[in-house]
Amino acid sequence: MSTSNPTHTSHAVCTSHPNIALVKYWGKENIPEITPIHGSLSVTLNFGVTTTKAEYSSDDVDHFYLNNKEAEITSRLKTAIDFFNDNGKLHFNITSVNSFPTAAGLASSAAGAAAFVGALASLVGKTNNPITYWMQKGVDLTALARKVSGSGCRSIHGGFVEWVPGTPSESVAKQIADQHQWEDFVVFSVIVSSKKKDVLSTKGMQSTVETVPWIHWRAQEVVPKRISDAKKFINEKDFASLAEIIMRESNELHANCLATFPPIKYLNDESFKVVSAIHQLNDDHKINIAAYSFDAGPNPFVFTTKEHEKAVLDKLHEIGIEESSITRATPCEGITCTYNE
Amino acid sequence: MSTSNPTHTSHAVCTSHPNIALVKYWGKENIPEITPIHGSLSVTLNFGVTTTKAEYSSDDVDHFYLNNKEAEITSRLKTAIDFFNDNGKLHFNITSVNSFPTAAGLASSAAGAAAFVGALASLVGKTNNPITYWMQKGVDLTALARKVSGSGCRSIHGGFVEWVPGTPSESVAKQIADQHQWEDFVVFSVIVSSKKKDVLSTKGMQSTVETVPWIHWRAQEVVPKRISDAKKFINEKDFASLAEIIMRESNELHANCLATFPPIKYLNDESFKVVSAIHQLNDDHKINIAAYSFDAGPNPFVFTTKEHEKAVLDKLHEIGIEESSITRATPCEGITCTYNE
Repeated sequence: MSTSNPTHTSHAVCTSHPNIALVKYWGKENIPEITPIHGSLSVTLNFGVTTTKAEYSSDDVDHFYLNNKEAEITSRLKTAIDFFNDNGKLHFNITSVNSFPTAAGLASSAAGAAAFVGALASLVGKTNNPITYWMQKGVDLTALARKVSGSGCRSIHGGFVEWVPGTPSESVAKQIADQHQWEDFVVFSVIVSSKKKDVLSTKGMQSTVETVPWIHWRAQEVVPKRISDAKKFINEKDFASLAEIIMRESNELHANCLATFPPIKYLNDESFKVVSAIHQLNDDHKINIAAYSFDAGPNPFVFTTKEHEKAVLDKLHEIGIEESSITRATPCEGITCTYNE
Repeated sequence: MSTSNPTHTSHAVCTSHPNIALVKYWGKENIPEITPIHGSLSVTLNFGVTTTKAEYSSDDVDHFYLNNKEAEITSRLKTAIDFFNDNGKLHFNITSVNSFPTAAGLASSAAGAAAFVGALASLVGKTNNPITYWMQKGVDLTALARKVSGSGCRSIHGGFVEWVPGTPSESVAKQIADQHQWEDFVVFSVIVSSKKKDVLSTKGMQSTVETVPWIHWRAQEVVPKRISDAKKFINEKDFASLAEIIMRESNELHANCLATFPPIKYLNDESFKVVSAIHQLNDDHKINIAAYSFDAGPNPFVFTTKEHEKAVLDKLHEIGIEESSITRATPCEGITCTYNE
């Protein structure tokens, strides 16, 4: 660094991780603000890591580099920049690198949004702990991450996280239990198909909200109870009961996609092979030792505990899934930030 | 016939046809009485014919022959026999033959139930018109056919038929429009898979009623409007509007199956190829010229009108469906009975 101006040498680095929804988010209440029609609940997992560095720009223009290529600053990213740029007085260089296992098939947008917000918040706040720093100023960083990428708000925190619905200021993500609460909770990302999905989530969920007759009834009458039950089961580490919620939530998400007009199909015959295998495994054990969940694509996440890891892997191998298509993860921390002058 | 007793020479022959639901039946309100949780609407079609002959048994035991083999008189069939046997004083020989095109993949139970009830009603009433004869005695034959095989009640009548929900005595099938109302209404039965279904309808729909959270809400808030709209569109021969109802009803039935716990999957990747093709065709025409509907299996029924028959067939061929896998039908009459002394 040749300049002596401290703002040009100071920088912040923020790491974050993807999160997987146990109670699903599918449908916006307020589209520009990205508030959901009902709450959701996730676990932040060490499938991979996004590392984002923020520093002040020397040329008075914002720059964003994603995986070493200059990338567009979308209007959603601009929302976060605008929050921190002191009415346009500050400009940033932001570089973000995703280190996700190739096989994981994980959308990196949630981790990306959390790290993007975290890095800026750490830099501008001159703090290693931007969540607390900004909360003391009345700013919940999860609400900011939410505007960058809906479910990104959940990756701000580690462990088990609830994203509550409500007005733009109410709809924040809260940690229910940290990564140490349930360390033997295991999640496998399983690749059954590498085909790109046909319908993007943003478009798909909007179409669901507009056309599925029961969507609002379900949001009000079904989901709140699911979330409160899931929180209880996480607290009690009751895997068998949580597993049923995870599977029902996945099934109902994809049922809602199928009831969307025209229908949205994310699951394929290979996906259903995994569904059947898990139900079979649970039937054989006479208790739920595993659960499946699908996001907006055909590739399942399979949940279990360390105790039953081998039984689950054996079952997946039995239906023809190769070891190389399986990535393992456990609950991990939320954003971790380091500020340097 | 060696006996001179007229009851031993008299016989009745009844023909009937399958019906395809446009607004679906899925879920019983009263299991033994087979009343539905909501109404449904069908069209009776000349895909094939069931011919059932009823005569008095000479050995004081009831016999039932299905497709030339002696078959069990199930408790459901017994319900119909008991209604007509004058407190056990009469006994019957009933022979039933289904003439369905091999490729059609049609459950014959609806046509079978209608012809079974029709033949007995014709024999015992000594009438060629058992529907009217028994109605004058306060007996609606559709309620009797309903107890033999739920949707069988709809095959008593021809053309477009509504099965109304309600108490066991209220839940009958009524003709909305006869087979002459819309003669250029065309239905194709398309075979994409000959694999036997995994979950039988009776068991599947019970599981749906027990586990899908929105099933009763949907029954009350969604279906009645669908039926009243569909009746209007049939009356106006508004195919494009009816097509949307047909597709939504099919999608929502299978969404409900997917939301059942454990999930029930009747559709496969081949089924969805047809779904996509029909939506594409409709998009290309900027109006719905076709619709798809699936019962409890992967094979679609494709609806169109004579005007667009060629376009629909071309599209089906384009996605690899062979001519031999397609059976064509149009609306036809309900049961037709002949009584002979």
